[in-house]
Amino acid sequence: MNIYDIAKKSGVSIATISRVINGGKNVSKKTYDKVLAVIEEEGYTPNVFARGLGLNTMETIGILVSDVADPYYAQMISYLTTKLHNLGLNVLLGCTGNSLENKNRELQMLLDKRVDAIFLAGSSQQELRGNQAIKSAAKKIPVIMVNGRINAPGIINVASNDQEAIYSSVFKLHNSGFSKPLYVFNTYTYSAHQKMAGFKKACSELGKQKAFLRENMLQLPNTLEEMSAAILKLIDADKEFDCVIGSEDMLAIAAQKALKERDLKMPVIGYNNSILAKVSSPTLTSIDNRLEELCSKAVKLFHETTTGSPSSTYVTLDCQLIERDSFRTENNTK
Amino acid sequence: MNIYDIAKKSGVSIATISRVINGGKNVSKKTYDKVLAVIEEEGYTPNVFARGLGLNTMETIGILVSDVADPYYAQMISYLTTKLHNLGLNVLLGCTGNSLENKNRELQMLLDKRVDAIFLAGSSQQELRGNQAIKSAAKKIPVIMVNGRINAPGIINVASNDQEAIYSSVFKLHNSGFSKPLYVFNTYTYSAHQKMAGFKKACSELGKQKAFLRENMLQLPNTLEEMSAAILKLIDADKEFDCVIGSEDMLAIAAQKALKERDLKMPVIGYNNSILAKVSSPTLTSIDNRLEELCSKAVKLFHETTTGSPSSTYVTLDCQLIERDSFRTENNTK
Repeated sequence: MNIYDIAKKSGVSIATISRVINGGKNVSKKTYDKVLAVIEEEGYTPNVFARGLGLNTMETIGILVSDVADPYYAQMISYLTTKLHNLGLNVLLGCTGNSLENKNRELQMLLDKRVDAIFLAGSSQQELRGNQAIKSAAKKIPVIMVNGRINAPGIINVASNDQEAIYSSVFKLHNSGFSKPLYVFNTYTYSAHQKMAGFKKACSELGKQKAFLRENMLQLPNTLEEMSAAILKLIDADKEFDCVIGSEDMLAIAAQKALKERDLKMPVIGYNNSILAKVSSPTLTSIDNRLEELCSKAVKLFHETTTGSPSSTYVTLDCQLIERDSFRTENNTK
Repeated sequence: MNIYDIAKKSGVSIATISRVINGGKNVSKKTYDKVLAVIEEEGYTPNVFARGLGLNTMETIGILVSDVADPYYAQMISYLTTKLHNLGLNVLLGCTGNSLENKNRELQMLLDKRVDAIFLAGSSQQELRGNQAIKSAAKKIPVIMVNGRINAPGIINVASNDQEAIYSSVFKLHNSGFSKPLYVFNTYTYSAHQKMAGFKKACSELGKQKAFLRENMLQLPNTLEEMSAAILKLIDADKEFDCVIGSEDMLAIAAQKALKERDLKMPVIGYNNSILAKVSSPTLTSIDNRLEELCSKAVKLFHETTTGSPSSTYVTLDCQLIERDSFRTENNTK
């Protein structure tokens, strides 16, 4: 039973339900009593965030996403949208691609359509550097960066702790006897930079030479076939590595394919804990960045802005390693 | 070099570029000459659809999608958005979920935001039955159904020929000696109904008893694990089937997992030709419904409405079987 069900059963709008929940201002006694009766009858507990929500002034939230075809972002949008709908808010999405120019154009379009806040789902480093348009928008309405970071007034930053997750994975592999990790990546998002920083930090602390480290990072092309081919080339060139970490599940799976083709076995770890990790063979150990909780946190902090200041403007959420057949901390020692 | 690059290089808006391309009405001689010089210098050929596009009156297109977290719909939105952006149009997305009520609410929101056309990306049967809101919208602006069908003025329908694709797959399996197909599905979209109709038609023509047919259709739950468990249950109950067709790749992969667990081998065919088909082991033979061409066709027919009547209001696009290890027409005979 949500606010829509209550509205339907009461025969009134959700705005009216909201007004009743918030004290009954501008609601007739008759309507007020009728709605309260339905609420009590159904045992409905209004979402804590819906209280105090001025539905008449805050109706439509904009979300900007760089690449909607990426299953990770598609899932992020789905979570954000559902959670915002549950607050009785409308959601408009804009798809930007990765160029700063297009992102600014889409941002302006959402502002022209008079959205009351903007979520940015994933951000490239380029966008974060040339972020004047975002900073300007944040002077007028709340801006929430999900896996991005801009320190400016009015901007809320919520990100998973990708740096720590990759950092500790390198240590886990090392402790199991695998000390020559190959790190494969293919984008330059904020998250990608965090992950790479975690990899470099761990390798450096474990006493690797910088030259060696460079050899063991490989930027992959776009399709699964091209990715596998690039890793095969590395194997055939006798590059020394004894385990693989992928910045996304798809990249780790490309490594699995290449290793299988050369009859090699070594631990492989992916990222995102997507459906691909379950489908791959062997099933893929993957870092779960707790996307749904990340989205909940982002929506919660945004919602705090509707009644005052948010309790925080920079939040990181720890990730979790989900062990499957491609690497198990206990069994998989050299 | 696209219209944006030309606009940037000329130092004018894309609306001005459009006016120049369309004959130069309301453009100063100086601007007209400058833009034409840039167009000639860059060897720019305007997209045929961008000709005659009244950018001042047709600026923002709305897309409604039921489930953005579904990779198939996410990819569909990505294609539609890119193609509409290439015409110099803005795109706003609304996520509806599957209930008719929510879809109508999101439709109204897009109309309130004054979109100039609406694309519906995937439609449930329920929506198609209770489609009064869509029909009303179509009286004011073009409505384009992508994998949906409503016969009413102002509505353009573009769909892949899912019925024929499943129908001919059953025949292909039959011709290879596999005559007891199990069909697994889990949604009730327009496409799902088409696929099921194709399965029933083929089985009926191949002389199957209705009772037998019913036993060989199984509606699956939502997660990969639950899907596999449901198919395992069927295997353990000695239900007779010798090949599997899934209405989506994920469902076919669930069948592969269940079969592997019982050491059974039989042909499996999926649908959508998604990345999952390449990642699964054995790699999955899958029906490619040519999503990008479908989206191109939808955008093309929509665009024809900006200058007159569309050349067709009901188009179907044939699918293609992409053979991989899970079933090859030639090798895989009984």
